[in-house]
Amino acid sequence: MAKSLCCLLLCFLILFNCCSARQQKSRQQNECSISRLTAQKPSNRIQSEAGVTEVFDHNNEQFQCAGVAVVRYTIEPNGLLLPSYVNAPQLLYFVQGRGLQGILITGCPETFQSFQESQEGQQGREQEGQQGQQGQQGQQGQQGQQGQQGQQGQQGQQGQQGQQFLGDQHQKIREVEEGDAFAVPTGFGHYIYNNGNRQLVVVSVLDVSNEANQLDFQPRRFYLAGNPQNEFQQQQQQQEGSEGQQQQQEGGGSEGRGQESSGENIFSGFDAQQLAEAFNVDVQLIRKLQGQNDRRGNIVRVEGGLQVVLPPRGQQEREEQQQDHLHARGNGYEETICSLRLKQNIGGHRSSVTGYDLPVLQKLVKLSAHKGHLYQGALVLPYYNVNANSVIYAIRGSARIQVVQQQGQTVSNEEVQQGQVLVIPQNFAALIKARDSGFEYVAIKTNENAMINTLAGNLSLMRAMPVQVIASAYQASNNEAKQLKHNRQESTIGAPGSSRSQYRASA
Amino acid sequence: MAKSLCCLLLCFLILFNCCSARQQKSRQQNECSISRLTAQKPSNRIQSEAGVTEVFDHNNEQFQCAGVAVVRYTIEPNGLLLPSYVNAPQLLYFVQGRGLQGILITGCPETFQSFQESQEGQQGREQEGQQGQQGQQGQQGQQGQQGQQGQQGQQGQQGQQGQQFLGDQHQKIREVEEGDAFAVPTGFGHYIYNNGNRQLVVVSVLDVSNEANQLDFQPRRFYLAGNPQNEFQQQQQQQEGSEGQQQQQEGGGSEGRGQESSGENIFSGFDAQQLAEAFNVDVQLIRKLQGQNDRRGNIVRVEGGLQVVLPPRGQQEREEQQQDHLHARGNGYEETICSLRLKQNIGGHRSSVTGYDLPVLQKLVKLSAHKGHLYQGALVLPYYNVNANSVIYAIRGSARIQVVQQQGQTVSNEEVQQGQVLVIPQNFAALIKARDSGFEYVAIKTNENAMINTLAGNLSLMRAMPVQVIASAYQASNNEAKQLKHNRQESTIGAPGSSRSQYRASA
Amino acid sequence: MAKSLCCLLLCFLILFNCCSARQQKSRQQNECSISRLTAQKPSNRIQSEAGVTEVFDHNNEQFQCAGVAVVRYTIEPNGLLLPSYVNAPQLLYFVQGRGLQGILITGCPETFQSFQESQEGQQGREQEGQQGQQGQQGQQGQQGQQGQQGQQGQQGQQGQQGQQFLGDQHQKIREVEEGDAFAVPTGFGHYIYNNGNRQLVVVSVLDVSNEANQLDFQPRRFYLAGNPQNEFQQQQQQQEGSEGQQQQQEGGGSEGRGQESSGENIFSGFDAQQLAEAFNVDVQLIRKLQGQNDRRGNIVRVEGGLQVVLPPRGQQEREEQQQDHLHARGNGYEETICSLRLKQNIGGHRSSVTGYDLPVLQKLVKLSAHKGHLYQGALVLPYYNVNANSVIYAIRGSARIQVVQQQGQTVSNEEVQQGQVLVIPQNFAALIKARDSGFEYVAIKTNENAMINTLAGNLSLMRAMPVQVIASAYQASNNEAKQLKHNRQESTIGAPGSSRSQYRASA
Repeated sequence: MAKSLCCLLLCFLILFNCCSARQQKSRQQNECSISRLTAQKPSNRIQSEAGVTEVFDHNNEQFQCAGVAVVRYTIEPNGLLLPSYVNAPQLLYFVQGRGLQGILITGCPETFQSFQESQEGQQGREQEGQQGQQGQQGQQGQQGQQGQQGQQGQQGQQGQQGQQFLGDQHQKIREVEEGDAFAVPTGFGHYIYNNGNRQLVVVSVLDVSNEANQLDFQPRRFYLAGNPQNEFQQQQQQQEGSEGQQQQQEGGGSEGRGQESSGENIFSGFDAQQLAEAFNVDVQLIRKLQGQNDRRGNIVRVEGGLQVVLPPRGQQEREEQQQDHLHARGNGYEETICSLRLKQNIGGHRSSVTGYDLPVLQKLVKLSAHKGHLYQGALVLPYYNVNANSVIYAIRGSARIQVVQQQGQTVSNEEVQQGQVLVIPQNFAALIKARDSGFEYVAIKTNENAMINTLAGNLSLMRAMPVQVIASAYQASNNEAKQLKHNRQESTIGAPGSSRSQYRASA
Repeated sequence: MAKSLCCLLLCFLILFNCCSARQQKSRQQNECSISRLTAQKPSNRIQSEAGVTEVFDHNNEQFQCAGVAVVRYTIEPNGLLLPSYVNAPQLLYFVQGRGLQGILITGCPETFQSFQESQEGQQGREQEGQQGQQGQQGQQGQQGQQGQQGQQGQQGQQGQQGQQFLGDQHQKIREVEEGDAFAVPTGFGHYIYNNGNRQLVVVSVLDVSNEANQLDFQPRRFYLAGNPQNEFQQQQQQQEGSEGQQQQQEGGGSEGRGQESSGENIFSGFDAQQLAEAFNVDVQLIRKLQGQNDRRGNIVRVEGGLQVVLPPRGQQEREEQQQDHLHARGNGYEETICSLRLKQNIGGHRSSVTGYDLPVLQKLVKLSAHKGHLYQGALVLPYYNVNANSVIYAIRGSARIQVVQQQGQTVSNEEVQQGQVLVIPQNFAALIKARDSGFEYVAIKTNENAMINTLAGNLSLMRAMPVQVIASAYQASNNEAKQLKHNRQESTIGAPGSSRSQYRASA
Repeated sequence: MAKSLCCLLLCFLILFNCCSARQQKSRQQNECSISRLTAQKPSNRIQSEAGVTEVFDHNNEQFQCAGVAVVRYTIEPNGLLLPSYVNAPQLLYFVQGRGLQGILITGCPETFQSFQESQEGQQGREQEGQQGQQGQQGQQGQQGQQGQQGQQGQQGQQGQQGQQFLGDQHQKIREVEEGDAFAVPTGFGHYIYNNGNRQLVVVSVLDVSNEANQLDFQPRRFYLAGNPQNEFQQQQQQQEGSEGQQQQQEGGGSEGRGQESSGENIFSGFDAQQLAEAFNVDVQLIRKLQGQNDRRGNIVRVEGGLQVVLPPRGQQEREEQQQDHLHARGNGYEETICSLRLKQNIGGHRSSVTGYDLPVLQKLVKLSAHKGHLYQGALVLPYYNVNANSVIYAIRGSARIQVVQQQGQTVSNEEVQQGQVLVIPQNFAALIKARDSGFEYVAIKTNENAMINTLAGNLSLMRAMPVQVIASAYQASNNEAKQLKHNRQESTIGAPGSSRSQYRASA
């Protein structure tokens, strides 16, 4: 009898395993019953030398159903988020601060220049010019400007006279600041450096269910350096140990675990001898490449600060589409991939970025973003996302968000607070009401040309119907039907995706 | 020992659950072993005030494998299928009758006009002109024509002199009739009204596995009004109770269940007070918006009939691509979405509609349709669908349909009768032979440019091979090989997808 | 107690079934944990009359994760791989020998001609001309050339004077030879004939997870003739019986099983009487069509050899895009589908084929291929596939291939030998070192424009970073950082996908 019980128990355990394993699948595998959406805080917090990584539990049903993963990085001044790439397209939103974003693609031109440390010795102005010519990049105009910039602007700004311009050449680095949306295609190397005076906060939404991800729907970050705890893998392991306790205390997550981190960069898996041969360096240096004994985590401090020569922000962007039509020599096939604009500020007079604004979204990333700002008590008229899931990140303030599914049942009536995330699934109806503090948010949507339909007010579906249809549909008098159709004159009160659409039309 | 048995039983039960749960997944999850395809009747029947909704069991393996859901609506004269939207693109085929189809998109121009009820009081002809100008739509040409139409055609036709033209403006309404194929993109609001004298019968095929559906493969209909039993959800619940007894008696399905319907429209999930604020109306009216105590179902009667001003059918279509290039103001991004043609009659001299005919199929809906008509005893030569699953709906008559899978095994040898549905999976070989009554059908295919390969007759794969290859492949003499290649001169006898292809080529 | 144990056992068995059944799913269903990649040999070997079919176990995790299936055909001289089609796009690579590839599409022009057996009797030269005119193809130029060719070239070459030109017309047949990559879209009929003097060896990679496959991810081959063991189904059945023993002895697989093969061609599932009606032939002949009592397998011998009239290889290709712009009459919709180039030789001065070279890859097949050749001890610098999974087939020699996953763990450190296959998953880092024998391979990638990023050397991501970033990331001195960045000057040592990219750029 004891054995029977034991058997029973065992069976249950196995079954639980078997079935719970199934829960960790993608939007296209589970039925997304979605009976309850709750505002998500980060479920895991990883402290590094110069910053913090906070991971939202990508096994949560709403992220699974939408096929996305969400991470927030807080980078201290002079902090560097180590170079890495992920197996899915991502849209970054810079919540606070300013920084530099480097994108790494085999074969793109190395037309940017950085200063190097002073121990290299003093070298004259002339060398700078030579260096530019040695590089044979044939972009005299831009080079010249950069050189001048470096002299007048950058050096002055940084005020570090010990540095020398040594013409270290590398691929383009883009300045980023609060309000920027930044697209990173699948598998593109990238790093972020905080060159400002305050924390740089950036939220990353990965679309793991995008067709550009050709494996399963597991988010995977491949670090090129360091010995970091892998934010997604970490969570997975934790997950296995204890499912269910994913909601954690205010401010998010547990501290980095006491035990030795097992996360490592991709070089650590190769044979050191062969790497030494590949890089043509000493095996001792390969140890550093492999990040052995590196305990700094994924965000590290750059001693003395990163010294990069940058053209003025406006100029850089203007030149982006003209100057950069070089050949992606290594890959050869897509000559324009190096010159694609990847960034759009949506914090100011523009409130959204779509595939029409930023071709990289259309071609490779298939995401879009909308920035919303509601004043105290303001209401986003009821609406639904026609062709996208929407990941709402609360930047400041708070709001009550109601979400309704296909049978008219409320699946969310949550107060979403600063730093929290809520997914509004495709076609689910939503209504957002800002609290007293107002509500500032960014909605990242899983379609490069996300579209909403509004249910009340001007331009809404209610306006689109004849009064007679409204009257019949709602068992209302003609007069009542007219009220439903016409009483609200505004087209939206700061509705996600439509309040500033006139800017799109002109884009 | 009893415990052991019990344990055993329990294990089986759990496992059955576990495994049977898996069966309710999408085409991309199960292996579609498809050992048997049977002609499907509706498995659920929902009676409404002014019509009937019949649902084909979307959990049936053939629908699961093809990733589609099928519903048939029968709408009484003056009946209105309530406005709704679904989470997948759909292709409607109008089997019988005539009606009006309204499409609702935020931001599309409200350039159509309807009459309203007479209680508004008598108003002169002149006001009509004024109204048109007040609307400031700048489409004098079309407006004027519509006005005239309304005067001469519509009013005369409807013969209801108590009505007045009050210039109620709304989005375009399209006339539909028997033989029309109508495309509705994912998430677009739509309603259907029967303005004819007989029942309007329309079959809807939803492509839930289309990439435009970004959640799971569950079909979801979101009603904007009423308190209807949700056709897909209803079935799901039923499903959970009793799997397996999905085949039901002639004429289809069980009557609407006795208990109170739990289906509701999407407004019912919102807080009434906030809706009142959003619509700027009294909370009492919101009760009507939320469909409380509405027991009419999803097809309701329009008292007095819907009074819409329509240009003559031909003219409307001609103008569709020229006049409507207005701005979809609310969404802004896709200026042409409002003017896309959504309809194509395939009941007459044209027998199919593809992405080449109807750009909306190419861009958004990714489905196509073919109408076939076989005379008594006629045979569709053996063929297979190259790049699509095919959903065959029997409009009239009956046929024996043989379907063969990759190992040469017969998976269907069914007689498919009027009102029934059979899925022919991609690449499975099929042969259709009409019975004495002849066979009229529509095949809706999961590819906007569905393509077939025929296996016998002119233009067939047999013709494409050298005689020597045929002889060697089939161990036949050269003479026999020539017979196989040349004895059938026709290219097809009413084959789905090819019999009238010359019309496509000219489209 | 015994019962308990029995119960326990039973539970395990069922669970094993249940869970192992789940393992037979696609890349989008399982989490591809991929802890170990091993070089794969064929797991099943099917001997036919004139050749051998060797199947790589498509249930192996690496194939499942990549969503591909791999088969190798070895066809004897005068052997014919029977006409068939598959439910997924495939890229064939011709490893050895020369042959003819026929593609079968309903509606493509039948502008090619073959000889027929001599028993038809002697017929004059004049008839040839007549025949050409009777065909009414209006392509006098090409016809004439072919006729001449047939006279001078083909007949002479074949040296079989008993044959006569009888003007048997059929669709285009393409010559193929060692080094050719050949694209076959989903559902297109095709056959391969060995017209050379040695074995023809061809490797086929099927992309079952391609969107062109609209059912599940099971590879399905539909034979149009014969009574062959179905290579994929066969394996499945075997699989059910005994999982795990998939690695088999050198040279691959078990001999064709003793028992009667159950595989049959698609005609065998139809009613013979109806087929007789469809083909307008005697039912006795239908028995042959259905392949009854055919024990030759899927590769059969063409007695006397296949006599086809072919224009010289270069001319055929030049004409391909000009002459063939005929109407695909049966399907009508895609006028250019018949004239698409399907072949590219990558064994010679070109080393890769992408969607830019071969539009059919861009439009329909979504695969690309790269041919690599490493000399003794040569190293492919570490790299990763940005946007594709890569299926590496070892043509000659052997190499050690290291593969590293996202956490820096080695998942492969395999010696891959001639005839073996290894999948390198998307974004996984890889390093290939040829053994003493050198290494020749073809990599077939699941993206029509596959892209790699290199991690060392010129054009690598290391070059793309500022020295300061490298120094900070790897805790290295500036000097060390410069070594990592600059010490390797080559851009790659025969890296897959990039070593000859200049050819692509000019394509």
